[in-house]
Amino acid sequence: MLERFKVPAEDQVRVPEDSLRETVGAIFEKMGVPAEDAALGADVLTSTDLRGVETHGVSNMLRTYVGQYNQGTLNPRPNWRVTRESPGTAVIDADKGLAVILGPKAMNMAIEKARTVGVGIVTMFNAGHSGGIGHHAMLAAQQDMVGLVTTAASVQVVPTFGAEPRLGTNPIAMAAPAKNEPPFLFDAATSAVAGNKLGLARRVNANMEPGWITQTDGTPIMEEWPVPETRGTYFHLPLGGTREMGSHKGYGLAMMTEILGTFLSGVVPTVLDMNGGSKHSFTAYNIAAFTDVDDFKEKMDRMLQMLRETPPAPGHDRVLYPGLSEYEEEQDRRANGIPLHKEVIEWFSDICGELSIPTLRTM
Amino acid sequence: MLERFKVPAEDQVRVPEDSLRETVGAIFEKMGVPAEDAALGADVLTSTDLRGVETHGVSNMLRTYVGQYNQGTLNPRPNWRVTRESPGTAVIDADKGLAVILGPKAMNMAIEKARTVGVGIVTMFNAGHSGGIGHHAMLAAQQDMVGLVTTAASVQVVPTFGAEPRLGTNPIAMAAPAKNEPPFLFDAATSAVAGNKLGLARRVNANMEPGWITQTDGTPIMEEWPVPETRGTYFHLPLGGTREMGSHKGYGLAMMTEILGTFLSGVVPTVLDMNGGSKHSFTAYNIAAFTDVDDFKEKMDRMLQMLRETPPAPGHDRVLYPGLSEYEEEQDRRANGIPLHKEVIEWFSDICGELSIPTLRTM
Repeated sequence: MLERFKVPAEDQVRVPEDSLRETVGAIFEKMGVPAEDAALGADVLTSTDLRGVETHGVSNMLRTYVGQYNQGTLNPRPNWRVTRESPGTAVIDADKGLAVILGPKAMNMAIEKARTVGVGIVTMFNAGHSGGIGHHAMLAAQQDMVGLVTTAASVQVVPTFGAEPRLGTNPIAMAAPAKNEPPFLFDAATSAVAGNKLGLARRVNANMEPGWITQTDGTPIMEEWPVPETRGTYFHLPLGGTREMGSHKGYGLAMMTEILGTFLSGVVPTVLDMNGGSKHSFTAYNIAAFTDVDDFKEKMDRMLQMLRETPPAPGHDRVLYPGLSEYEEEQDRRANGIPLHKEVIEWFSDICGELSIPTLRTM
Repeated sequence: MLERFKVPAEDQVRVPEDSLRETVGAIFEKMGVPAEDAALGADVLTSTDLRGVETHGVSNMLRTYVGQYNQGTLNPRPNWRVTRESPGTAVIDADKGLAVILGPKAMNMAIEKARTVGVGIVTMFNAGHSGGIGHHAMLAAQQDMVGLVTTAASVQVVPTFGAEPRLGTNPIAMAAPAKNEPPFLFDAATSAVAGNKLGLARRVNANMEPGWITQTDGTPIMEEWPVPETRGTYFHLPLGGTREMGSHKGYGLAMMTEILGTFLSGVVPTVLDMNGGSKHSFTAYNIAAFTDVDDFKEKMDRMLQMLRETPPAPGHDRVLYPGLSEYEEEQDRRANGIPLHKEVIEWFSDICGELSIPTLRTM
């Protein structure tokens, strides 16, 4: 994550992992979510914060979920069901359940299919937000598989040359295990900047880079720009920003996630049905079906080591690979707590009061 | 394709499709490729030129293949074999065969698997170039499936912040059928600009955009720049160009193609084994396993129509979707011939003379 999005040291309050997990679980339960599902949801969000993916952890997302449970747009006890199934595939109607909680269930289903036929893909429609999809992809990596997760959701991104948004920021995540190196974990929006980054940016007063967002007529803003206060006063640009820089590629990748998650769920994208909820896809590739697992991991080690030992270009300290800084962050945060913005701590204090649950314990 | 890469009208010589197909097939046969494979390879390359994907059609690639057959780095009669297989997966050792020809065979294998278990993925190592991978993805779309193809190859792209190249320009392609609209066909390098675009750029004297390539120390060149004459005097940047613009996403996507094609083939990327050849993956998703095929196509129609009817931003005529301009190009080129650069016609004239085959018929 770019430095500008991080919580400034003077605004940080550190919170121990177990405390965050407990409080988030208690909040889910107060929303009507069954205990086991509440614990699962708390685990997904806390793990995401542990990895330093603050855009998709508790600070940015939990209050949205609480609002959606309260409004009834999220169903705390979804009667989710498989609408079509084959040995390698399944489609899930999520019944407005939160995909933060249903995502691990779908990925586990894909993993079981991959155990049997080598690869499994489960698509999901009529769902709530998925949280940080890298977490669901990691569930496959922990089972000696490669995990691939995509999400398609709300309409924020203009197609290349377009004046109106048609697509979501539609992220793609992949995780793959290594032997001694931290696992490969890629998780990124197919827009130039993730939608949730704007929430973080507002909180820490960070600027937008050229090529991230548009004016309301679709014209790319190609200079540094203050973060817009309200939705509707800007749209997102696809990864690449402009056609010259490859925005047609970000646009195509966004459509790829719609095809995998949305059309292969049998539904249409949000731009054609605003009440259709989010759509996700969860794929597991069973490494053992392709090659020897140990050998795969050793080869991954060689590559990941080579990547992080790449000599840096002038002005840079080192080269990372996807998942490396998240792993390092996790070690630090497990030991020293998760740094939340003081404004987020205030929100926890308020919501815990409202819901009559013990308040979040800080360090 | 950006206008600057197109063959200038005054340098164009139009060639009929069937003539190109015949001559390319004859050249493959003279390289020792069996007649049926030669026809298949000619079909892939000609179809790619028909779609206007000149980077990967005959003009840019055929002379490279001829060179590789002559040097013995490509095997005209590969004894390719499946090294591991499960109901949904297979791994192919290509025995140095050209993936232009083996790609359709691998995709057909994936399609058969998808018919049985809903999804099929075939990975391939020790292979030659794949040509335009969109073509192989389209084979699935023509069978009422979604096709996904990835390729990982030669080392040209720096990781974000890196001073040395570690990855290929590693493209991703997806195709999906529609009912009345031209099919969705996405095919793009995960680098800011495709490697083959530099070949075109040299021929038509086009400049590089800011954020496409680096200096030799890895520093991104952020101004317009003449196309470098020789490899090694520049490296490619990942899609996004700079970290601020999202180059870590292009980098991660490039690694994704290495994981799918390379590590799931049981081998290492080219940076760790320069003689390992190219690595590919071919996935077919059987739409009928997920939803009703007709319904899928109608929903695709609605979305594709909505995308192309998006009001354009100021300064633009219209909004495209991936595959639309390729479809339009194909209609034109089937009727009016394929415009090749006069320099490419000269090459054909020379090679046909050398190989004692009838020369390419122009219009």
